[in-house]
Amino acid sequence: MSRWAPDARERLETAALDLFVENGYEDTTVAQIADRADLNRATFFRHFADKREVLFGGEDKLARLFADAIRAAPADATLTECLQAAFAAANVAMTPQQRAKAAKRVLVVAANSELQERGLLKHARMTRSITAALRERGTDELTARLGAEVGMLAFTIAVERWMQAGNGEPFALHAAAALSDLQVRAAELDSRSRLSS
Amino acid sequence: MSRWAPDARERLETAALDLFVENGYEDTTVAQIADRADLNRATFFRHFADKREVLFGGEDKLARLFADAIRAAPADATLTECLQAAFAAANVAMTPQQRAKAAKRVLVVAANSELQERGLLKHARMTRSITAALRERGTDELTARLGAEVGMLAFTIAVERWMQAGNGEPFALHAAAALSDLQVRAAELDSRSRLSS
Repeated sequence: MSRWAPDARERLETAALDLFVENGYEDTTVAQIADRADLNRATFFRHFADKREVLFGGEDKLARLFADAIRAAPADATLTECLQAAFAAANVAMTPQQRAKAAKRVLVVAANSELQERGLLKHARMTRSITAALRERGTDELTARLGAEVGMLAFTIAVERWMQAGNGEPFALHAAAALSDLQVRAAELDSRSRLSS
Repeated sequence: MSRWAPDARERLETAALDLFVENGYEDTTVAQIADRADLNRATFFRHFADKREVLFGGEDKLARLFADAIRAAPADATLTECLQAAFAAANVAMTPQQRAKAAKRVLVVAANSELQERGLLKHARMTRSITAALRERGTDELTARLGAEVGMLAFTIAVERWMQAGNGEPFALHAAAALSDLQVRAAELDSRSRLSS
């Protein structure tokens, strides 16, 4: 087994997902994952704190991409423009390869409540990361929290649509559309028009 | 130990909270909780699936109160009016006694990531419960999901303000104010006015 592997993290993720789909999450050990990736257990634990984390590394990366893009947005950008900048930045992480992995992940996570809880923790961290980045721009506290919730809902809806759509459709298109759909509805929370569609 | 105790659930909750605060969540056993409540382990497990659940029974109750109130709202109620009805219904569960318990709960949960994950799961279930109740009224899918997220954020903010405020302030007042604060901001997601406050 090679001790030095520049693509170790990705190999471990791929091996873990394949094994989780084949044998179930519960019945897969870290040793089996490392073995399938042609690496050893120590290498696994250099990259992931536990077996659950191997499924959620992408969320940590996205949280950083979101926050960096919001911080880098022009000083006069609206909240919607900040979120659009975040999703545009996320586009680099949303490759067709990631899309195939995401489909497997959905299956694995749906079958295990412990994984659902970890997924919610990651979702909450992404929300907090967006809130903090908006707050740093001088956005008032409630608007920052609302913007982060609406942004994460737009992101979730965009991922669902991106997964359902054919290959080749860029994620950023779905993200912009989902955000726009929510923005229209957010402006109408107290209207009667959409309650009986 | 009395086998039949009409207030067993509440006694177990109180005993658990006190022990968690005194000795820490990790170091408290179900046997100790039952003992403090003058009940036995079997009674504990008739009321709660595990040690974590003793902290989150209120969320299940609130999810039911929210959904029932939304279903019972007048046919022409707006989304905001549906959420207001939900919070008004929740008021019965938000007693000064609950407020004292909630303060202890915040301390216990903040110290334990496992509990935070369970809290997020309950939060997600409450959101889904509101979404489902809105959907049943004919609210379109995206509006229902947005309304549930905004509603749960309003609820969270209202609980924070209710905890910080002096005793005697009814929860429903904070809930109505938080919802109104968010509604104003939701209508302005694309404006430049609030980004630099």
